[in-house]
Amino acid sequence: MSNHESSDRKICRESEQGKSVGLPTDPHRRNLLSAAVSTGSALVMTSMVAQAQASDPLPIPQWTKTLGDPVLKNPYGLPSPFEKAIIRRETLAADMPGGYNFPTPHSYWSTTPLQDLRGTITPNGLFYERHHAGVPAVEPSEHRLVVHGLVKRELIFTMDQLRRLPTVSSFHFLECSGNGDMVTEGKFGKNVADIHGLLSCAQWTGVKLSTLLEEAGVEKDKARYVLAEGADSAAMLRTIPFQRAMDECIVVYAQNGENLRPEQGYPVRLLVPGCEGNLNIKWLRRLEVTDNPAFSREETSKYSDLTGPDGMAHKSTLIMEAKSVITFPSGGQELPEAGYYQIRGIAWTGRGKITGVDVSMDGGKNWEPANLTQPVLSKCLTEFTLPWRWDKTSAVLMSRATDETGYVQPFIEQLFTARGKYFLYHNNAIQPWLVQSDGSVVYG
Amino acid sequence: MSNHESSDRKICRESEQGKSVGLPTDPHRRNLLSAAVSTGSALVMTSMVAQAQASDPLPIPQWTKTLGDPVLKNPYGLPSPFEKAIIRRETLAADMPGGYNFPTPHSYWSTTPLQDLRGTITPNGLFYERHHAGVPAVEPSEHRLVVHGLVKRELIFTMDQLRRLPTVSSFHFLECSGNGDMVTEGKFGKNVADIHGLLSCAQWTGVKLSTLLEEAGVEKDKARYVLAEGADSAAMLRTIPFQRAMDECIVVYAQNGENLRPEQGYPVRLLVPGCEGNLNIKWLRRLEVTDNPAFSREETSKYSDLTGPDGMAHKSTLIMEAKSVITFPSGGQELPEAGYYQIRGIAWTGRGKITGVDVSMDGGKNWEPANLTQPVLSKCLTEFTLPWRWDKTSAVLMSRATDETGYVQPFIEQLFTARGKYFLYHNNAIQPWLVQSDGSVVYG
Repeated sequence: MSNHESSDRKICRESEQGKSVGLPTDPHRRNLLSAAVSTGSALVMTSMVAQAQASDPLPIPQWTKTLGDPVLKNPYGLPSPFEKAIIRRETLAADMPGGYNFPTPHSYWSTTPLQDLRGTITPNGLFYERHHAGVPAVEPSEHRLVVHGLVKRELIFTMDQLRRLPTVSSFHFLECSGNGDMVTEGKFGKNVADIHGLLSCAQWTGVKLSTLLEEAGVEKDKARYVLAEGADSAAMLRTIPFQRAMDECIVVYAQNGENLRPEQGYPVRLLVPGCEGNLNIKWLRRLEVTDNPAFSREETSKYSDLTGPDGMAHKSTLIMEAKSVITFPSGGQELPEAGYYQIRGIAWTGRGKITGVDVSMDGGKNWEPANLTQPVLSKCLTEFTLPWRWDKTSAVLMSRATDETGYVQPFIEQLFTARGKYFLYHNNAIQPWLVQSDGSVVYG
Repeated sequence: MSNHESSDRKICRESEQGKSVGLPTDPHRRNLLSAAVSTGSALVMTSMVAQAQASDPLPIPQWTKTLGDPVLKNPYGLPSPFEKAIIRRETLAADMPGGYNFPTPHSYWSTTPLQDLRGTITPNGLFYERHHAGVPAVEPSEHRLVVHGLVKRELIFTMDQLRRLPTVSSFHFLECSGNGDMVTEGKFGKNVADIHGLLSCAQWTGVKLSTLLEEAGVEKDKARYVLAEGADSAAMLRTIPFQRAMDECIVVYAQNGENLRPEQGYPVRLLVPGCEGNLNIKWLRRLEVTDNPAFSREETSKYSDLTGPDGMAHKSTLIMEAKSVITFPSGGQELPEAGYYQIRGIAWTGRGKITGVDVSMDGGKNWEPANLTQPVLSKCLTEFTLPWRWDKTSAVLMSRATDETGYVQPFIEQLFTARGKYFLYHNNAIQPWLVQSDGSVVYG
């Protein structure tokens, strides 16, 4: 320890020549503030930094003169009242009467306000919702998870028993396969949340599905799929190829440290990293090892793609391909003046890690590599940034993600060519944003 | 794209032999559930998995028969009502009358319920609090950050201007230097939150302090410290050595993706990764480059250690040394039966990365290396796990962290020897938990 404390001792000795510094009522400090203000208008800024405007001399604000709120005003804390506009919202509900099959309050969705977020973690309160029969109020003490089918031992787990099993924690995005579908339908949202907000990211904790299946003793010669069923009244039901279930799936009960939120499948859901959200069955009550897919409603009438020029149906497009979107500057935002801005966005892929994001400021003619915030994690959101100096001329901004398989995010035209004009799900096209000369940003 | 879709095509073709699977009212599925139950009592479990108890045949629960809550019931979501006991709490307030200098509702603290959390992210609503004059309601539009002192250009930033600057995002823990101090005072809390709950971890986003200082043009020949002051009525004021300010500090405005919570310094705070919480000035309004430390109240009468057998005072013990704690099994928890359990905990160090955590089941005689959840990040919580089979005899569990400097977490006796009996802050001692033969867990 001594070697660690020596540096502190050094600091300590130096601090003995320290000068006293004023408290809020000390005129010395107020003079400093005024001085700072009086010279504020003479600032010379580098090309990399926004100009700090001078303003009137700073008064000591009221909140510095009085006690604030007591500790534990909210034993479970909430955002600042000044942030009350940063919430989940319905997607263009007013703009698309009948545009979807079940526009009811119980089979609908809400979007994450990605344009207002930073970094890669989505706060649980802003995690996107997609329900098919509403959010069931599952009693954790009464909930059971059954493992059966082609197994030697059928198992029934209580939540307490699940929580005793070996745990894993990892960061993964979740994206609805319908994310971006209004674009393929010719409907263009106003901002990132409207178009791409069925996307969120969290640290998930739970039990590997392989732990449960190995415990049940899978009949490996016959097992080819695992069926997962939810406890909601839609009985959401999907099938996962057996090897993916063994290699990647996690039965999760915690999200960003705390137990799952009701909208995310409380008390337990399936996580299939990198695959379409609908596959990540919420309120998970049943896992059946089978020799064939379920061919369920959600694999036939819904979540199946009519793609390919040959009109061939894809009933199980599981993996979310590489995608990215610029969140600043983006639709609905305004650039107040010419000068430095940081272009920011997020990229993700269901195939592993993002290896690069290129950004274009001229509608795709020229591309520059963006900086990726470390650590870059597999099947997780990756933040990218790039400095930009705006000269008040209109510009079309685009981002293009590449993943570790070498796959490059396509233009929408490439998707229409590859899939035909009727495709709806899995739109991972490049998103153009038009920055207009007045600073307003709209769909490009 | 085609090579990616081919695997989906394969799945699709296979699914054409799929069998139909029942919905909630389908007797077929109910039979499967009953069958699973009827054989549930014949389970043979491996040594690694908790026994899944058989129970009465499962009825179809009410929440599977009816619609749940509609989407957007909570535009900003909240935890399940079943989790209402997982909240922040005061630390042993009733047990320590006068044990602290300011046990008032405005200069007090609340703890993170670490024993109820998983992974490494602390949800913002459960992030620990420590205030000295309550939580000020700072108006972001009126708030200013002043940079002055030994600089060529004094700067004043509005929040909009700060948000335009180049951003960084990184994961770091925050710990109050008083975390664990009731132990050094001979007061022993009941659970992890009581003893170690002034600790949380988040992904932070903001501007490097070096960006602001370089923009202001520091007089490098004179600059040795940076003074940071808060806008609360305590005017919290601390000094950071200049090189640490340039290399590591971040002026943050977002936490786990969303804007800072009021209790965490909304709209902007200083982050000094790895250093005691008090240094991470909340509601940051002033940064002054100086040639000497402030020698402020918080560096003299508070947050200064009386340590060392020579009684020498450490006025600036900045860095939080390596520490770990087992969160399961931990104080106040119960082991219901003999058998498999996963020992879980968290480790952290202000010196960089955790390189290992050893766990002892016999009060420190023998140690076993635990598994560290990846990725292990610098100055961030690290999750560790180790399987354990409990035989219903009493056992003392301990964890011992090692960091990349080679520093090893000490026993409390080593700290008393090194620092004398009057030390209060920076208690990073090994935490023993006694698992009693009845399964109850208490301070060891």
